[in-house]
Amino acid sequence: MHQLKDIIENKIINDLTKSFHRSPKQLNKVHETDAEIIKLDNSPYDLAITIDTISEEIKTGLYSDPYQIGWMSVMVNMSDLAAVSAAPIGLVISQILPNELSEEYLDKIQSGINDACNKCGTFVLGGDTNFGDELIISGCAIGTIEKGKYLKRVGCKAGDKIYTSGTVGTGNAYAFQKLFSKNDSQFVYHPAAKLEWGNILKKYSSSCIDTSDGILSSLDQLMRLNNVGFKFRNDWDKVIDRSSEQLFGNNHLPIWLLLAGEHGEFELLFTIPAEKKLGFLKEACHLYLKPIYLGEATEDQKISLNLYNQEQSLDTEKIRNLTFEKDFSPFKYLQKLLEIDQELKN
Amino acid sequence: MHQLKDIIENKIINDLTKSFHRSPKQLNKVHETDAEIIKLDNSPYDLAITIDTISEEIKTGLYSDPYQIGWMSVMVNMSDLAAVSAAPIGLVISQILPNELSEEYLDKIQSGINDACNKCGTFVLGGDTNFGDELIISGCAIGTIEKGKYLKRVGCKAGDKIYTSGTVGTGNAYAFQKLFSKNDSQFVYHPAAKLEWGNILKKYSSSCIDTSDGILSSLDQLMRLNNVGFKFRNDWDKVIDRSSEQLFGNNHLPIWLLLAGEHGEFELLFTIPAEKKLGFLKEACHLYLKPIYLGEATEDQKISLNLYNQEQSLDTEKIRNLTFEKDFSPFKYLQKLLEIDQELKN
Repeated sequence: MHQLKDIIENKIINDLTKSFHRSPKQLNKVHETDAEIIKLDNSPYDLAITIDTISEEIKTGLYSDPYQIGWMSVMVNMSDLAAVSAAPIGLVISQILPNELSEEYLDKIQSGINDACNKCGTFVLGGDTNFGDELIISGCAIGTIEKGKYLKRVGCKAGDKIYTSGTVGTGNAYAFQKLFSKNDSQFVYHPAAKLEWGNILKKYSSSCIDTSDGILSSLDQLMRLNNVGFKFRNDWDKVIDRSSEQLFGNNHLPIWLLLAGEHGEFELLFTIPAEKKLGFLKEACHLYLKPIYLGEATEDQKISLNLYNQEQSLDTEKIRNLTFEKDFSPFKYLQKLLEIDQELKN
Repeated sequence: MHQLKDIIENKIINDLTKSFHRSPKQLNKVHETDAEIIKLDNSPYDLAITIDTISEEIKTGLYSDPYQIGWMSVMVNMSDLAAVSAAPIGLVISQILPNELSEEYLDKIQSGINDACNKCGTFVLGGDTNFGDELIISGCAIGTIEKGKYLKRVGCKAGDKIYTSGTVGTGNAYAFQKLFSKNDSQFVYHPAAKLEWGNILKKYSSSCIDTSDGILSSLDQLMRLNNVGFKFRNDWDKVIDRSSEQLFGNNHLPIWLLLAGEHGEFELLFTIPAEKKLGFLKEACHLYLKPIYLGEATEDQKISLNLYNQEQSLDTEKIRNLTFEKDFSPFKYLQKLLEIDQELKN
């Protein structure tokens, strides 16, 4: 059986939280939701709260454009709210600014924050500023949820259909181009949180997670939480964003790594019980939302993909734990992924 | 006239927030409250939210004990909630952990977080973990407030009486001992947020701020927000914590610097209209709370203290801006404060 704690990231979370008492008002368990859900007494709604920090992405050079850094510091948090179907109230932002930061650079960060808030119809409520050696931005977002109607990662059953809110792979394509390729201008990466999916998913979906850590990570986490497996549709390349596929093709990289890499696309990944599928698709169409069919949940607890002309089971435990290997670097990470690809080819 | 923007910290906040749209649901203006206040529709209460990061304190060596670092990461946020009279719901915590951090050290941080939460009757709701070069902890706390009844920094008038929730100076005494003295064990600094004052202050106080930045900073900020001045009681040394006074005495440091230093004691500083004074004191006594009388708000917009046998006006603008001087170091900061003391002596 695939257990949560076999994934190093889950184990770290377990270790960090093991000594803490849980609030009696907290409705979700650890790992169960993308944001924390808090019961509000005498109120028609509950509260969602989430915190996310942009630091490693800046340090590795993955994000270097100040506008993008500002934008992402909002969106990573808004995406967590979207994945529990919360309507954002706003966010507070803590910035650690290097002393030598120019006013122009700072203005661009703030402009990215502002535009991302506008895109989500939300607001910066306040913040905190410190000075240090490196630029680090933490955002903490809050939102409201219709009472008892939050989306969870748990609830999916074998036979459920898996969808994403859009084509996938853009996060990993961007990461490859930014870290390994000289042509810097091709790929713009300004993902937007999928807040507009909240209402329909509340009605139809049996589980939901955002793809901030990539498609395979998201599926692997759902597998461990729900004791199910996932089988990709045979023509799974259809779910991949065209320009991402092209970039990987031009660089002779296997396309399925666009699903495997840890830099996600901030889509929502969700499951729909088979009997609700038609109603869901009809209503989605009505709302001009275009769900992308990804595959099906299975009894067999594994993640399988038709690759190199055979159905293959992917070692998502190994893949997810690569980022925690000693002396991690983006280059070594890509190398390891290519080694796994080589094994699947043989 | 003393303006908010003459203080570098206020100017930084103004610059950072100038491009942001304000939420129509946000009840407080910038600078007006210790935490942000958000209107909750169809609810018997409003929401308070605040974010605060512990980084500079770790970098300068002011906090080096992991238990204390954990404790403070909770308390700095709880103190902001106390200063708006919110009842805490909980907090989310983002930690940046150095790779080489031992399990034992991490356990101590978590233990400090846990104990501080227990002390405040609150909970860690969730968090985020990253790895980096330096230990940095951001906390974001939320709480509820009886509708419309939040405490503000604005509202104080000339003639109002100024109080603190306890004796003062411990934060600066601790800082001096930790950074300049070899005897490390004398001073334990584990301040607790003064959440128990919320109900009485809602009823009686005309303005409130926490003393996280020290007494003079808090008074200076209230002065600029309310267009009033403050005159300390003549025997102002009575408001100072005994062991802090002793430590400064033993080290031949002027006692008033315990009010001036930027490392505060996390008490609440609040004003009570003269006509409400008796009722306030009676109820405080009944609740076993011991307000400390600090002085009086005045028409004359200055902060004055009887020092070296004469009433002296303190240049709090200069004092507050010292921490933003180029090449700031704790040593230079103390030197500059001593220079100001020398000028007052002459």
